[in-house]
Amino acid sequence: MPQGDMKQPLLRSSRRPQGPLSDVGTDAPLVGILGTGDFSRSLAQRLVASGYRVVVGSRTPKRSSGLFPEEADVTTQQEAASQADLVFVGLFVEHYSTLSELKESLAGKTLVDVSNGMRINHDGPSNAEQLATLFPDSVVVKGFNVISAWTLQTGPRDGSRQVLLCGDNVAAKTSVAQLCRDMGFIPVDLGRLSSARDIENAPLRLFPTWTTPVVCALSLFFFFYFFNFLHDVLHPYVVNGKNVFYKLPIDTVNVTLPAVAMVMLALVYLPGLLAAFLQLRLGTKYRRFPDWLDRWLQARKQMGLLAFLCAALHAIYSLCLPMRRSARYKMLNTAYKQVKDGPAEVWDDEQVWRMELYISVGILALGLLSLLAVASLPSVGNSLNWREFTFIQSRLGYAALVMATLHTLLFGWDRAFTASQYHFYLPPTFVLALALPCAGAAGPPGAVRALRGAPPGPHPPRLGAGTLHPLPAARGGGEWSRAHQ
Amino acid sequence: MPQGDMKQPLLRSSRRPQGPLSDVGTDAPLVGILGTGDFSRSLAQRLVASGYRVVVGSRTPKRSSGLFPEEADVTTQQEAASQADLVFVGLFVEHYSTLSELKESLAGKTLVDVSNGMRINHDGPSNAEQLATLFPDSVVVKGFNVISAWTLQTGPRDGSRQVLLCGDNVAAKTSVAQLCRDMGFIPVDLGRLSSARDIENAPLRLFPTWTTPVVCALSLFFFFYFFNFLHDVLHPYVVNGKNVFYKLPIDTVNVTLPAVAMVMLALVYLPGLLAAFLQLRLGTKYRRFPDWLDRWLQARKQMGLLAFLCAALHAIYSLCLPMRRSARYKMLNTAYKQVKDGPAEVWDDEQVWRMELYISVGILALGLLSLLAVASLPSVGNSLNWREFTFIQSRLGYAALVMATLHTLLFGWDRAFTASQYHFYLPPTFVLALALPCAGAAGPPGAVRALRGAPPGPHPPRLGAGTLHPLPAARGGGEWSRAHQ
Amino acid sequence: MPQGDMKQPLLRSSRRPQGPLSDVGTDAPLVGILGTGDFSRSLAQRLVASGYRVVVGSRTPKRSSGLFPEEADVTTQQEAASQADLVFVGLFVEHYSTLSELKESLAGKTLVDVSNGMRINHDGPSNAEQLATLFPDSVVVKGFNVISAWTLQTGPRDGSRQVLLCGDNVAAKTSVAQLCRDMGFIPVDLGRLSSARDIENAPLRLFPTWTTPVVCALSLFFFFYFFNFLHDVLHPYVVNGKNVFYKLPIDTVNVTLPAVAMVMLALVYLPGLLAAFLQLRLGTKYRRFPDWLDRWLQARKQMGLLAFLCAALHAIYSLCLPMRRSARYKMLNTAYKQVKDGPAEVWDDEQVWRMELYISVGILALGLLSLLAVASLPSVGNSLNWREFTFIQSRLGYAALVMATLHTLLFGWDRAFTASQYHFYLPPTFVLALALPCAGAAGPPGAVRALRGAPPGPHPPRLGAGTLHPLPAARGGGEWSRAHQ
Repeated sequence: MPQGDMKQPLLRSSRRPQGPLSDVGTDAPLVGILGTGDFSRSLAQRLVASGYRVVVGSRTPKRSSGLFPEEADVTTQQEAASQADLVFVGLFVEHYSTLSELKESLAGKTLVDVSNGMRINHDGPSNAEQLATLFPDSVVVKGFNVISAWTLQTGPRDGSRQVLLCGDNVAAKTSVAQLCRDMGFIPVDLGRLSSARDIENAPLRLFPTWTTPVVCALSLFFFFYFFNFLHDVLHPYVVNGKNVFYKLPIDTVNVTLPAVAMVMLALVYLPGLLAAFLQLRLGTKYRRFPDWLDRWLQARKQMGLLAFLCAALHAIYSLCLPMRRSARYKMLNTAYKQVKDGPAEVWDDEQVWRMELYISVGILALGLLSLLAVASLPSVGNSLNWREFTFIQSRLGYAALVMATLHTLLFGWDRAFTASQYHFYLPPTFVLALALPCAGAAGPPGAVRALRGAPPGPHPPRLGAGTLHPLPAARGGGEWSRAHQ
Repeated sequence: MPQGDMKQPLLRSSRRPQGPLSDVGTDAPLVGILGTGDFSRSLAQRLVASGYRVVVGSRTPKRSSGLFPEEADVTTQQEAASQADLVFVGLFVEHYSTLSELKESLAGKTLVDVSNGMRINHDGPSNAEQLATLFPDSVVVKGFNVISAWTLQTGPRDGSRQVLLCGDNVAAKTSVAQLCRDMGFIPVDLGRLSSARDIENAPLRLFPTWTTPVVCALSLFFFFYFFNFLHDVLHPYVVNGKNVFYKLPIDTVNVTLPAVAMVMLALVYLPGLLAAFLQLRLGTKYRRFPDWLDRWLQARKQMGLLAFLCAALHAIYSLCLPMRRSARYKMLNTAYKQVKDGPAEVWDDEQVWRMELYISVGILALGLLSLLAVASLPSVGNSLNWREFTFIQSRLGYAALVMATLHTLLFGWDRAFTASQYHFYLPPTFVLALALPCAGAAGPPGAVRALRGAPPGPHPPRLGAGTLHPLPAARGGGEWSRAHQ
Repeated sequence: MPQGDMKQPLLRSSRRPQGPLSDVGTDAPLVGILGTGDFSRSLAQRLVASGYRVVVGSRTPKRSSGLFPEEADVTTQQEAASQADLVFVGLFVEHYSTLSELKESLAGKTLVDVSNGMRINHDGPSNAEQLATLFPDSVVVKGFNVISAWTLQTGPRDGSRQVLLCGDNVAAKTSVAQLCRDMGFIPVDLGRLSSARDIENAPLRLFPTWTTPVVCALSLFFFFYFFNFLHDVLHPYVVNGKNVFYKLPIDTVNVTLPAVAMVMLALVYLPGLLAAFLQLRLGTKYRRFPDWLDRWLQARKQMGLLAFLCAALHAIYSLCLPMRRSARYKMLNTAYKQVKDGPAEVWDDEQVWRMELYISVGILALGLLSLLAVASLPSVGNSLNWREFTFIQSRLGYAALVMATLHTLLFGWDRAFTASQYHFYLPPTFVLALALPCAGAAGPPGAVRALRGAPPGPHPPRLGAGTLHPLPAARGGGEWSRAHQ
């Protein structure tokens, strides 16, 4: 590979240092890097740009030196290890053993393990812990693996600047944390080296908190879609030989979506009620909840957002109805019939009122849900304090649930009780959709309040991947002193 | 309460340290905690996880020790007070007096007051200041009350990581700030201990900046709704005995919302003009504005967002119109009349043009407003520099106002001048709604520019709860040097 | 200017210190400020509030002292320069020369250059570098120019708290960085003083990354609008003398928008394919891409968001169609014709299916696009790790493109092949709009994967203004070790 390539900065607006290095070399601290991979190269660039002196340990110094900024001193691994007190280990975990001959020169020094796991929660110890076992006399700090070579090169101005750290030695951790800050990152200390596993898993996650809610929403969708197919499409075909298969792309979907949204929304509030109930019965707030309830409570935010998504799609689908060719044709034919065999005056006041009411209530429900969705954006949610958060979650969230239920009830009107609606003895969808919410609504709001602020709302406080146990939330900063004694 | 409960981590993915504590106890700094409440417990967990040694002072060491991580040393208050140099006071403010016998052992040490107020701006000194009076020989730092026990336990990865601090002693504050960082929080120094009141109020706020704008929007809504009820519903009933009460849920709301949005939007731009006017008249940029104007200027962002909310709802309501049963019936009846008594060809070119125009202009106005709304999201707004921010606020914002006004004018067309529109001698709503905006539009954009970049736009720079005085904004980083001399 | 004005805090809830300053003056570090402009004043306030001692150097100490907090000691420039070791230079760059007589007293001290450029990339050295040349014996650190006087006064709780720093002396930079933190800001080190230019440009930027994409979108819009005018409005007028000019505000726009959206979306994915292709051909991942491709790759996020904006507007416009007077009239007339000359039964099954299908597919495409848009919000995007980001960008993004193309194909149906659609020998718009996407779709997804995670999606990772070179992204933290050698 031609040397020139790395010499010439990867970025047009390079952050790499130019000009004399007079001061560096005298007062600048020295950092060592073992390994010459992409990450090592970018790390070297960034360190130099942050004014550190860098010594790189390579098995082939000559060949590698071209890959690094000229300010970095590329030498043998032995050299680098003996010179620097803080050493980044930029190697494959498989190659850690190759460093064994550096044991003495690395003794008492701080090793930073920047490696990533190959897959989540692989058996055996974390990479960092393996490194620690190989170098019992050195201090191992885990970190920087969540940062990409790319972020290192461009500098941390854009995007996440958090660097997760952990390690058993406080002093070492503090110095690495300071290094982070000098490079423009925000160190986040996750405690002892035993947390290395979590840190190594971090970059491997693929929406772990979303899988269950999404699966749940999808299965609900398919169930209701099939149900509506039987109820609205197949039944008229079988019974009256009426071909309405054209309903499949829009009408059927548009009856399915609100049902899914309704149930998902109910599933957001149910666990809060269950938790409150358990808590009231068990009487103590220190008893743990059963795992399934724990996981459920943790998935409320995602479920709430999926409910919102379905509701929003439902709104768009509904708005599209009058625009369709089919609607147009129907209208024309009705008009034609009107004229041919009258009656002239068409106006069913009940139907008019029913529709005006459920539409306006539905719009309000959607409005409330979108407020909740906005409040669940990290940057917005973080600007709320506990009281505000709880207000939005439990008050607004509950109002949204009630509105949505009312919307469905008004839509249903009296049709739940007219036999004609029961095709194949199947009730109309809205009846099914209402089952859970009504159960939820039946749940005493007192129970909710009993949670003492624990949001039964769709978006548990400040949690992305974080687990949520409602009680500590309830005993949060805003109230701790009241809980004191 | 069974000991096991706290031993077993509250979180599945616990951050609590495992493994040998070899190094801690030797080099780790020692932190004291007085009190055994939930917050104290979580604090202890977090400190241990961050590699600190913790000594807890309890009135009942034996009973309490079970509540704390085993790494923490639970002893008498006297013991804890004498051992640690940095002591968290995890007590109810009412119980501060019970610590009086610790005066000597706490002398010269740093006390961290983590308590919250019971209600906003209660009389008398802040909790922290009370503590300072009780311990004149100790240094009091206020902080951590905005953090919940829950955030302490899960670690600060999710949600707001800012810890507001204040205190009169720089050294003490610096060490507490460092402690913050080691725990993964971001300390924000609010200056002297006299700011403790603000910090204690922080977790008690309930959308203080929103109350006035929301009240204002609601009262506007009710006024216009009642007005439209008289104008569009009651009048036809009284005069022609025509029953159109079905209009209440949607039509009337849909005439009310745009009026509210229009007025709110005008209210966003008016104070900027007033400020510019005052400034031009008073001639100096150092004279303060009257309080009411100050508060008004500070509420612009919220007013702008509420205006956007109303506009968005107005859009959805309008889109629902053709979908309604009532619309369908009307159409059918008209079709019937058409056929019965002709004329065959129905086409009023003026009406067509009017509607095509005001719809498309309305959509553009909504588009601009949503850009403003997005730019007011913290994470987006913060990525803008002053020039960009001012551009969005004063240029786009002004364009949105103009578009909205145009939308209303086109909607009104010539109907402001047809007597038939004046039911009960009341003008049509859009006439009222236009009054303010036109006043605003009349205001010289020169005046706006006179604010030298002070956004007359709905979303004052970077402000959540922050007050906004337009002039300093105008002298912001982007321009200070020009303002220099 | 009356003294009283600055004495009295600009803010109602002032952060300025009250109470005894006992400790300050003893242990508090001393900071110097040269110049008495607005920025200097606000800086002094903030420093005092953060517990620093401040000495201000003014050419007219008596006159100026009124402008500063009484805790600040206002004296001559000579005095200030000799007392403090860290000195802020709050002067116009033109006035730097006036400080020449301070050369000796500033020797060996740290000067902080807080000035802004007058215009982007002016010729000659950056202000900071000019200062450095004037004071060869002092150490110059660039910074704080991105912070406004206003933010300094209100404190950094609201809005961007990043302070960009650069300088050649590590020690000096570290102390300034610490000062930042004490004031509640987050220092971001951009390396050597040679980066001062970038930092001085920062507050002058006006959406540099948006200009090209916006221009591109606008020109596409005008091209397609004119095209549609010829095709749908002028042609019928010229040929059949049919006046449909009323279509200009809505119908024509609504045919134009989706075309623009389609092309923009294709332009988002094309460069990724080109890059993959180049990469496969050149065989090495270290060879640079040509500049134009680089810039194109960097503009993908903006292009994607503009595509989403057009798509969203297209949706709203479409939903408005049935609401319009023109639609109503058309319907009535058709109904009339129906009745007069039949046929009674109106139902074209093909047309019905076509519309039902392309509407529902279109809604799904819009849904996917909005997910991408939400994921491009800084606060959301930053919470994703590389795998999640890549999944959203390449999987969801690609799915959105496919859906949108399908939507257009279904809309087009067989009309691309009916001569009647070729007015003035011009093909219908959707044919043009499809050209690029189909090219893109033709591109092997394998090629995309060849980028090894480099998002071909609309929103390159974590980048606001940042440039994106797909390959380092591909070699990002999540994968570095695999790329290791």
